[in-house]
Amino acid sequence: MNATENLDQKDLKEIQVKQNIYDENDRQAKQTADQLHHRNIYAFNVMGAPGAGKTSSLIQIIQRWPDRAIYVIEGDIESDIDTRTLQSLKIPTYQINTNGACHLDAPTISASLVKMIIPDGSLLFIENIGNLVCPAEFNIGEHQKMLVCSVSEGSDKPYKYPLIFERADCILLNKWDLRPYVDFDYNFFTKGIRALNPKSPIFPVSSKTGEGFDAVVQWLSQRIQK
Amino acid sequence: MNATENLDQKDLKEIQVKQNIYDENDRQAKQTADQLHHRNIYAFNVMGAPGAGKTSSLIQIIQRWPDRAIYVIEGDIESDIDTRTLQSLKIPTYQINTNGACHLDAPTISASLVKMIIPDGSLLFIENIGNLVCPAEFNIGEHQKMLVCSVSEGSDKPYKYPLIFERADCILLNKWDLRPYVDFDYNFFTKGIRALNPKSPIFPVSSKTGEGFDAVVQWLSQRIQK
Repeated sequence: MNATENLDQKDLKEIQVKQNIYDENDRQAKQTADQLHHRNIYAFNVMGAPGAGKTSSLIQIIQRWPDRAIYVIEGDIESDIDTRTLQSLKIPTYQINTNGACHLDAPTISASLVKMIIPDGSLLFIENIGNLVCPAEFNIGEHQKMLVCSVSEGSDKPYKYPLIFERADCILLNKWDLRPYVDFDYNFFTKGIRALNPKSPIFPVSSKTGEGFDAVVQWLSQRIQK
Repeated sequence: MNATENLDQKDLKEIQVKQNIYDENDRQAKQTADQLHHRNIYAFNVMGAPGAGKTSSLIQIIQRWPDRAIYVIEGDIESDIDTRTLQSLKIPTYQINTNGACHLDAPTISASLVKMIIPDGSLLFIENIGNLVCPAEFNIGEHQKMLVCSVSEGSDKPYKYPLIFERADCILLNKWDLRPYVDFDYNFFTKGIRALNPKSPIFPVSSKTGEGFDAVVQWLSQRIQK
């Protein structure tokens, strides 16, 4: 067997292993979705780049919903900084550390949910690893994917990371308070999203000032009731 | 064979395939490094989160080095926005699209370099995919890893994404001009880096105003001459 044949065999093996991973992920995501549905738990997969303001956005959302049982799962490669922040605000939060892995997957969520006490009827926000690439590829059994972007990341992100914008059910455009200080072309940003995703709402928000989050919570409430 | 045994076999297969990928990557990275050394080309692997300002930092650096032959390879999942920006500034730039892959790897760079006309003695900046996780795991034959962060991402990033901070040879802390408008704890940031990486310099810079880049270019010049 020459080098080329050898490489082809290895490539095929890689592709097969990747496909097995996706298939197994989808199978377990479906199981988790069924369990959550059965328990009347509504789950969000919260995604975004490092430092987009996922945790601070969750705080703004959760504090506007005082009458709901809301739980958070924090996904991080390492550390529990965000979990401690949320717990200090009396928001019940569980930590998952992926120890290097760049996204949460369905097997991890499925195995973790068994150990977590989350009452039936709760809302559940699962904050994914800060990454605009890999988290978009893996369903984790969620009802909705929420994408948190920020104006300081620039308006070209939908063009560079199309999959996550295509799959998002709602998009928060955070750090709206920084808009006077950065070059952000809102029309270019929304045009890029609409080419991929005609329907998902885009909410300009500031997790620093709270601006825009009333509209987010109103929209989410309506979606959950459906 | 029961389900558990089955899973173990699959896990082992996954681990073996991953190890093969890392081994093959290291082998090709070593080959590329040898070739670049032989051709007196000094290469940087430029990494950072989406929207950290990698391209705009490269522009600031390259424009301060008018007497050097400098080439750029732009890595993107999709699009050629940054390549067009650099080419409009007469900076010779080649595009690599990974079509979904979340990082550049050594086989991709090795195969691409063959097709690119880069004179011996050049500087070469290879801009990786915007991602603080996966690019850190793959050497691509570079001499140095340059990490571009920004104050708008927050000061907790070294704690959440330790590998990339550990492996960086120099760290640019971009968007320094936004510091009055964001909560950024410089001491917490540097303390997190120093726990992982005692030596690499940290340069506060603004790719918008150009502040701080003279010091970056001075340091890089000294390193290249060594």
